[in-house]
Amino acid sequence: MDCYYCTPDESKVLYKGKFWTLVFHKQDYLGRCILNTNRHIDNFSKLSDDEIIDLRNMLSAVENELKDLFGCTMLNWACNMNNVYSEENPNPHVHIHIRPRYKNPVNINGTIYVDREFGSHYDRKASVQFDTVTIKFIFNQIKDNFLKYYIK
Amino acid sequence: MDCYYCTPDESKVLYKGKFWTLVFHKQDYLGRCILNTNRHIDNFSKLSDDEIIDLRNMLSAVENELKDLFGCTMLNWACNMNNVYSEENPNPHVHIHIRPRYKNPVNINGTIYVDREFGSHYDRKASVQFDTVTIKFIFNQIKDNFLKYYIK
Repeated sequence: MDCYYCTPDESKVLYKGKFWTLVFHKQDYLGRCILNTNRHIDNFSKLSDDEIIDLRNMLSAVENELKDLFGCTMLNWACNMNNVYSEENPNPHVHIHIRPRYKNPVNINGTIYVDREFGSHYDRKASVQFDTVTIKFIFNQIKDNFLKYYIK
Repeated sequence: MDCYYCTPDESKVLYKGKFWTLVFHKQDYLGRCILNTNRHIDNFSKLSDDEIIDLRNMLSAVENELKDLFGCTMLNWACNMNNVYSEENPNPHVHIHIRPRYKNPVNINGTIYVDREFGSHYDRKASVQFDTVTIKFIFNQIKDNFLKYYIK
């Protein structure tokens, strides 16, 4: 069975490291992205020591980068993998959802982004507040600056 | 400022390890619990290598235990820490929310538990399907068996 996370859309990849690949996602939360393991493993319990240590390092890099770029307050991050289990023959691949959260409004090239649920659980129905040009700008900013923040 | 996670309610503690404490939570999801760091640290980026490796081990133990005890399919787990940021002077303490998910109904002493959202995101308004006696039984089962599954 094909696995989406084994071959993520190259145009969405922000950074491919030794163990994890950071992939841009829907921008209902500014800087939202996914970290997936480079290995096809079906459960977090199979993460090696090196992989789980690098998960911390990758998450820290994302948080520190988004703090500097956009004034992010902190990240919500989660390992759920629910949808795959609605399929007849689930083929899970470990991935982490990252939703950055913002205490204050953010001005990105004139677009004011507001995290309307800050201080509460994320809203899975939050709307995207950016046009496609701004989304491309956000993607490029994160992609171009990531390595300044990633400490292996 | 007082920190709830530094002194969790002893009557809710399932296991206190070297780095993390496993605490029983609201049973809207069967076996739902929280892992909090024993150290008061405000951000996951401050987790030591030993702490993040042990997070994997603790989560694996919870998953494997709940698979055996109740037929759990897998865990949803998340580091959010949103509510503390709604306070005037946030004093965050790293903790992980664990919601076990179940493909099939579970019979616990005659109470049939159904994970109505299996295959989808958890429902933050899911109802508790157990009476207090059954909740105590669940707590004791998890507490009494945890060490069989925890591989340091």
